[in-house]
Amino acid sequence: MTEGEFPQPLNEELPMSTFADRHIGPAEHEQAKMLAECGYGSLDALVDAAVPAGIRTDRDLRLPPPASEQEATAELRALATKNRPMTQMIGLGFSDTVTPPVIRRNVLENPAWYTAYTPYQPEISQGRLEALLNFQTMVSTLTGLDTANASLLDESTAVAEAVMLMRRQSKAKSSRVVLDAECLPQTIAVVRTRAEAVGIEVDVRDLHTGLPEDFFGVVVQYPGASGVLRGKGFYEAIGKVAKEAGALYTVAADLLALTLVTAPGEFGADVAAGTTQRFGVPLGYGGPHAGYLAVRKGLERSLPGRLVGVSVDADGNPAYRLALQTREQHIRREKATSNICTAQVLPAVLAAMYAVYHGPDGLKAIAQRVHGLATGLAAALREGGVEVVHEGFFDTVLARVPGRAGQVLADARRFGINLGRVDDDHVRIACDEVTTVDTLRRVLLAFDLEAHAEPGPSALPAGLARESEYLTHEVFHKHRSETSMLRYLRRLSDQDYALDRGMIPLGSCTMKLNATAEMEPISWPEFAGIHPFAPAEDAEGYRELIDQLCGWLAEVTGYDEVSLQPNAGSQGEFAGLLAIRAYHKANGQPERDVCLIPSSAHGTNAASAVLAGMRVVVVACRENGDVDLEDLKAKVDAHRDTLAAIMVTYPSTHGVYEDGIGELARIVHEAGGQVYVDGANLNALLGLAKPGEFGGDVSHLNLHKTFCIPHGGGGPGVGPVAVRAHLAPYLPGHPNLAGDSAVGPVSAAPYGSASILPISWAYVRMMGAAGLTAATKVAVLAANYIAARLAPHYPVLYTGRGGLVAHECILDLRALTKRTGVTVEDVAKRLVDYGFHAPTMSFPVAGTLMVEPTESEDVAEIDRFCDAMIAIRREIEEVAEGRWPVEQSPLRNAPHTAETLTSDWDLPYDRKTAVYPAGVSPKGKYWPPVRRIDGAYGDRNLVCSCPPIEAYGS
Amino acid sequence: MTEGEFPQPLNEELPMSTFADRHIGPAEHEQAKMLAECGYGSLDALVDAAVPAGIRTDRDLRLPPPASEQEATAELRALATKNRPMTQMIGLGFSDTVTPPVIRRNVLENPAWYTAYTPYQPEISQGRLEALLNFQTMVSTLTGLDTANASLLDESTAVAEAVMLMRRQSKAKSSRVVLDAECLPQTIAVVRTRAEAVGIEVDVRDLHTGLPEDFFGVVVQYPGASGVLRGKGFYEAIGKVAKEAGALYTVAADLLALTLVTAPGEFGADVAAGTTQRFGVPLGYGGPHAGYLAVRKGLERSLPGRLVGVSVDADGNPAYRLALQTREQHIRREKATSNICTAQVLPAVLAAMYAVYHGPDGLKAIAQRVHGLATGLAAALREGGVEVVHEGFFDTVLARVPGRAGQVLADARRFGINLGRVDDDHVRIACDEVTTVDTLRRVLLAFDLEAHAEPGPSALPAGLARESEYLTHEVFHKHRSETSMLRYLRRLSDQDYALDRGMIPLGSCTMKLNATAEMEPISWPEFAGIHPFAPAEDAEGYRELIDQLCGWLAEVTGYDEVSLQPNAGSQGEFAGLLAIRAYHKANGQPERDVCLIPSSAHGTNAASAVLAGMRVVVVACRENGDVDLEDLKAKVDAHRDTLAAIMVTYPSTHGVYEDGIGELARIVHEAGGQVYVDGANLNALLGLAKPGEFGGDVSHLNLHKTFCIPHGGGGPGVGPVAVRAHLAPYLPGHPNLAGDSAVGPVSAAPYGSASILPISWAYVRMMGAAGLTAATKVAVLAANYIAARLAPHYPVLYTGRGGLVAHECILDLRALTKRTGVTVEDVAKRLVDYGFHAPTMSFPVAGTLMVEPTESEDVAEIDRFCDAMIAIRREIEEVAEGRWPVEQSPLRNAPHTAETLTSDWDLPYDRKTAVYPAGVSPKGKYWPPVRRIDGAYGDRNLVCSCPPIEAYGS
Repeated sequence: MTEGEFPQPLNEELPMSTFADRHIGPAEHEQAKMLAECGYGSLDALVDAAVPAGIRTDRDLRLPPPASEQEATAELRALATKNRPMTQMIGLGFSDTVTPPVIRRNVLENPAWYTAYTPYQPEISQGRLEALLNFQTMVSTLTGLDTANASLLDESTAVAEAVMLMRRQSKAKSSRVVLDAECLPQTIAVVRTRAEAVGIEVDVRDLHTGLPEDFFGVVVQYPGASGVLRGKGFYEAIGKVAKEAGALYTVAADLLALTLVTAPGEFGADVAAGTTQRFGVPLGYGGPHAGYLAVRKGLERSLPGRLVGVSVDADGNPAYRLALQTREQHIRREKATSNICTAQVLPAVLAAMYAVYHGPDGLKAIAQRVHGLATGLAAALREGGVEVVHEGFFDTVLARVPGRAGQVLADARRFGINLGRVDDDHVRIACDEVTTVDTLRRVLLAFDLEAHAEPGPSALPAGLARESEYLTHEVFHKHRSETSMLRYLRRLSDQDYALDRGMIPLGSCTMKLNATAEMEPISWPEFAGIHPFAPAEDAEGYRELIDQLCGWLAEVTGYDEVSLQPNAGSQGEFAGLLAIRAYHKANGQPERDVCLIPSSAHGTNAASAVLAGMRVVVVACRENGDVDLEDLKAKVDAHRDTLAAIMVTYPSTHGVYEDGIGELARIVHEAGGQVYVDGANLNALLGLAKPGEFGGDVSHLNLHKTFCIPHGGGGPGVGPVAVRAHLAPYLPGHPNLAGDSAVGPVSAAPYGSASILPISWAYVRMMGAAGLTAATKVAVLAANYIAARLAPHYPVLYTGRGGLVAHECILDLRALTKRTGVTVEDVAKRLVDYGFHAPTMSFPVAGTLMVEPTESEDVAEIDRFCDAMIAIRREIEEVAEGRWPVEQSPLRNAPHTAETLTSDWDLPYDRKTAVYPAGVSPKGKYWPPVRRIDGAYGDRNLVCSCPPIEAYGS
Repeated sequence: MTEGEFPQPLNEELPMSTFADRHIGPAEHEQAKMLAECGYGSLDALVDAAVPAGIRTDRDLRLPPPASEQEATAELRALATKNRPMTQMIGLGFSDTVTPPVIRRNVLENPAWYTAYTPYQPEISQGRLEALLNFQTMVSTLTGLDTANASLLDESTAVAEAVMLMRRQSKAKSSRVVLDAECLPQTIAVVRTRAEAVGIEVDVRDLHTGLPEDFFGVVVQYPGASGVLRGKGFYEAIGKVAKEAGALYTVAADLLALTLVTAPGEFGADVAAGTTQRFGVPLGYGGPHAGYLAVRKGLERSLPGRLVGVSVDADGNPAYRLALQTREQHIRREKATSNICTAQVLPAVLAAMYAVYHGPDGLKAIAQRVHGLATGLAAALREGGVEVVHEGFFDTVLARVPGRAGQVLADARRFGINLGRVDDDHVRIACDEVTTVDTLRRVLLAFDLEAHAEPGPSALPAGLARESEYLTHEVFHKHRSETSMLRYLRRLSDQDYALDRGMIPLGSCTMKLNATAEMEPISWPEFAGIHPFAPAEDAEGYRELIDQLCGWLAEVTGYDEVSLQPNAGSQGEFAGLLAIRAYHKANGQPERDVCLIPSSAHGTNAASAVLAGMRVVVVACRENGDVDLEDLKAKVDAHRDTLAAIMVTYPSTHGVYEDGIGELARIVHEAGGQVYVDGANLNALLGLAKPGEFGGDVSHLNLHKTFCIPHGGGGPGVGPVAVRAHLAPYLPGHPNLAGDSAVGPVSAAPYGSASILPISWAYVRMMGAAGLTAATKVAVLAANYIAARLAPHYPVLYTGRGGLVAHECILDLRALTKRTGVTVEDVAKRLVDYGFHAPTMSFPVAGTLMVEPTESEDVAEIDRFCDAMIAIRREIEEVAEGRWPVEQSPLRNAPHTAETLTSDWDLPYDRKTAVYPAGVSPKGKYWPPVRRIDGAYGDRNLVCSCPPIEAYGS
């Protein structure tokens, strides 16, 4: 779409409020007040003082003029109608499914769920933690394994993580992993991408040919990509051989099939991996969906991703929180074993609630129906003279039609159906929850058969039938009426604090508005109903949307090309580093493998570098937080011949526009290295400066930060990677994408989490160049306003030019802690009593709080926060002056539940001070459901499934 | 659609859960437990015992087999695509508008708002009461009048109510009302319908011809239906003449225009009436929209409808509640001055929030833009040689095109636009919020002009410009960012208790599930974007849907024809009685005007009868609650020649299946009377018995009760009227409906609140015959289960055959009150502490509670309620035994806020007993925002607009 095609604003004489006015919190007169506090006369003066002139871009962004909400919606509707949701029977790990409307409306479309942050503050996240515990319980009981994590990015990356886990845990001295030739082709491709970077040999083979002599792990797809289900003996035998070889055994299993066939944990699997998509999560052209990973006892501490566990609160009541956090990758940095810091919480919640709503009997009924339809289809095909290849299958029938596959597929499309093409001679037909007898009639017509499909005899191999129970916990039996389900969803979300209640001033996480107009389109069937491997002509609307969005992202970042495939920032990082490595290799410099990373960097940077096969060398920071350019020069000198790249965040994770970024890039480029600019803080740059212009060769962005995709309680994210032209040939490819790429895929679907891209599209479309730039400026203003208001009470750790910060600021509590014993955690939890989500704790500097207000908070809310922080500072003074012993202070006892008010009270402060401290109104008060949670207790006593109901007895 | 066209269930061997399984709360094993408590072995045995055999229908309902949620959604999508939302410039009180997405998602699509009940329990309704107070403040400041009510059904009924009010309050000895010929045609028609029934003479005239000698009131449309705005002198003069005549002056005003032109209260109007539709509420083929009515000081106690006012709670804090409730029509019965018990709360909340979001400046900008477009259009027309009739106008241009109107309209439709046809020579073009310069270009093309419309000079008559301020209250200035608006909406809804939190066991109100699949379609643009007076071919989908729904409702009620026009039960009643009256008149018996009404009847029955011009004669009830047939015979004898009808509710408002219904009908029919069966309790009959079969000639139904349209916090409702064939010619007509009717319209739009009909359509479509019948049976079971569980603790006042109740039961507290002083109000408020909405209080019998669980509550929730009632009974015993003085008991102090816990405590029960009594879990506890509200205080000190912020100071 060219600029000219966008309607121009109609009546400039009659200005109306724009979307940007709604997105940006502080109105003009509020901005004036904030500027005065900062000591600047205009927004531009402040921005000119804060942002180094050397990095400023010299022209306005070239974007279409901003559309109103209804114009953007109309354009998206026009794009949506260019998609063609067919009946999707392609299979390969993506099945159509019915999202129960009560779950769609009250989770996917409810800001209480989708605007929540990752549950790092567990006391105010009990609702989504319970939902995730349901998810883990569901995966664990269905797979028959002991511990499941709280989701991974998709099935293919889950299997890749399983491979890495097997390598870490295997006793076999081998670098070979064996993949069943029946593994999903995209899984094989993603595993190859990941394996190649770290020197794992991938051996794809028909497992009937036996296993090789040495291997550290084996992965079996269950049922296979062609639909095949083999005898139980086959699956058991692999487990035995693996065990004898000291190798581990992963089963990539279909959870719906597991309601009918033996669980992997029951035939010797150590690990199970896969997707939960078909549990009510729309196809969405490939994502977002929640992958899963489950392991047998003994492997749980090696699980990547997040793990929800049960612990106790200060009153000894059961409470949930993220378990084993010290194994989280961002903490382990270059020692990390995975870079996945993101889960797919929102899709995981959808899948878990689907299981809660259907229960074991309901899921089994769905599975039986799907299986019945598949057997009926097989029988009708055979009766009509078509060879059905496999005797054993669950939902997918493989038909042999020598030389006719193309014709059958084309005919099926005429009847509105996409079938799976295997080769010229074979067609794959995958049944699912939406398949009907009429669907099968149409499928059979494509085979030139006018037959009726009656359910046939079971095609589940004898002996493979599942005998063990699953989903026995009460929660999977209790909410079968819509009324009960609705109330359960409300009750859970009411326990949580999300953006729909108040500010979440998380440094580096950019919790800005997720506007309704951005969110509405993702529920539309034309976006939801597309299979990621559907023919390109079915996804014309997606293609246009993706092309436009890539163009806009390139424009705002100053890069030349963008890939939207990575479905998390971590994957974007990984893809960017792979591009750098591939580039050096293509230039005949495979030895360039050193990645410089400043000590202030987010831990994921290092983890991604390791996964990309690089060696991490840390560059020191100066006292003021900036990268130490002298140390950089020394490190570059020391590694001049092997220097691959530097990874640097801009503005830095210290929330400061460093002056030296240009010089830094020059030094690295001169030594033949590439400059990776982490786009995490792009919200401080948009419209002002472009990484691609001030030295970057590659960046990843976080669409769930700067571009308004909601955090969803911890995912989904989208992590596009943007590169300058010389790196473009090394962006991730995909078996289902046209064109060759030097680098394989990093996600299961060609466009990753495609179905949430309309959110970012709408944001850019409605903001336009001026709106995006204004948002950046106001974000910087808001951070400096907070710094100005709070500096008299808490030292601001780092500042840049003119004593200004960028879009966030770090409050240093270390001296206070030393003097009073009051910790950052105490302040964070006390903020809950004041009605706030805490800022980022102890990152990037231990003992500090990092605050990022974003542009979306108006001055009333920002002032409410500052007032609360100042009031807390006065409370700390009470401790300092000895009136409140720290152990008995409201700070240490925070957060206070309503229940505590009903107990006897012998504290040195009164009940009112506890729950309604200065400025907190009784009306609209947020009540945390639990008191402070004992994380260590839970790690010692690890429970990661739903506890029996008795545990909740008082 | 015939039965054969519905897809049959696919795989009966593989049963899946149906929608009915989700709608009906108790699963089969739970039903068994409940039946055991009631002493019956099967559901059928219970139902056979409870329902008199004589009224049972003898065959299953003939409805299409039940569709699944996704099938019903697909069928509705197919119907929706048969609608054609054009650019609507027809005007006549219906303007297209932009619903801000944040309001659509978080009010219209949020169960916390739409599943709430009427705010009769104000302590748990503060959120929606505040929203309604915003509505009243908005109307009051824009119209310049002192007091506005909390909405009426639509503009035309609002004007009709204004006419009635003027008659009551006028000192003029006249039965004549004068209507401006510029009044909306549908308003004139509705006023005529209403006026004729009560002997008011309607004089429609061009007011330039002057006013008649005697009249009690005059109504002016402002701007007029043709768009005209006259000089200020004109409007003032009418007020003066009216005042001199002792008459009152009503102005039917467009609220958006009032942001630019003088408020009616400023030129002498006593009353203003109109619609708030164009404040963000979709056209929806005519409704639901909130009408408004505002009056000058001195008339407020004569206002019909609901009025929200400010009072104080037990702690002296400001709190909202419905004011002046003793003037509510259902209490005044045959002395009522209106039968409107329903407001349009949900649309009123949408409109109020639209004003909150835009504020006065935003609304003014919209109005200026609309006006600018209209002036531009007028200028371009004139320039092109087309005569523009009026010099003064706001948004609507009247073009004179001699003989060409039909052609212009047809051409405009080719460009996607509906214009308004006045006559062969005149075309009306109404601009609105969605009009653009491009729209005008297309309009001009229809006039064969290729012109560009630039805003012209103002067409607002000199002197008419508004000078006074409006919407000055802080709430209209505070929430301008989407973030702030979102939080405001959440904060308000969090204060309220709705079905999404727990049971609302309101007798006679049938608070059942409002399923998401039923609700989703009403947001679709194809249903939302149709003007009620659009050509029939634009609304094919609506027509099919309406035809099917009417057919299904006729089938389930046993009647022959159904009208969906009445937009509330009260209007349905009124329409039904009009049909009876017209029938008698047509039979040459105009003297038949006596309406018999049992003393147990809902007060609206009597109020409607009076409005229909009937005389009410009360029939006594026997001790057991049944209609006293002996007294009936006596009354029939006494009024044999003038008997028009009997109005009877079945099952009775006592919640009992009376045996004598057949006999009752026989007696009345024999005397030449008609039998009106109030369908309020149809939820106890569906599938078991049909009023049209057991004696009824006419019934009205409540789609917001039995047929799942949510209560929406007190509207919208839909009150279809169903009749036997002999009354069919007397169903309400409408100027915009084909065919003549002997009776005029009762609503502004031909199909009333058309846009919410998909809800009931989906309910019937998904339940099918068996589902609807099962729902009825389970509703009866649930009521009897509660009666059985609670009878040992509270006497059940009335029972029918076998000691059974129907679908609700009355708990008699009178003896307990006498003995202990604990009132039903105490119990109702104490239930809030236990996490419940109270049952219906003191209706139909003072001193009792009427409980109706519906079929949607599962046994866990019903037991939670019974346990709470039993625990409360034990608390009453504490009072009885003197341990707790009633004044200091938790019953009298209920409800307890969290704030009370922080105060000093010198009560005879502890804090835990106050807020976490037996069985109440701290997690998920609902906290009321205020304590018990002093209604009398507020009535003495009537405040019906937003109080200044200082009022909230502690």
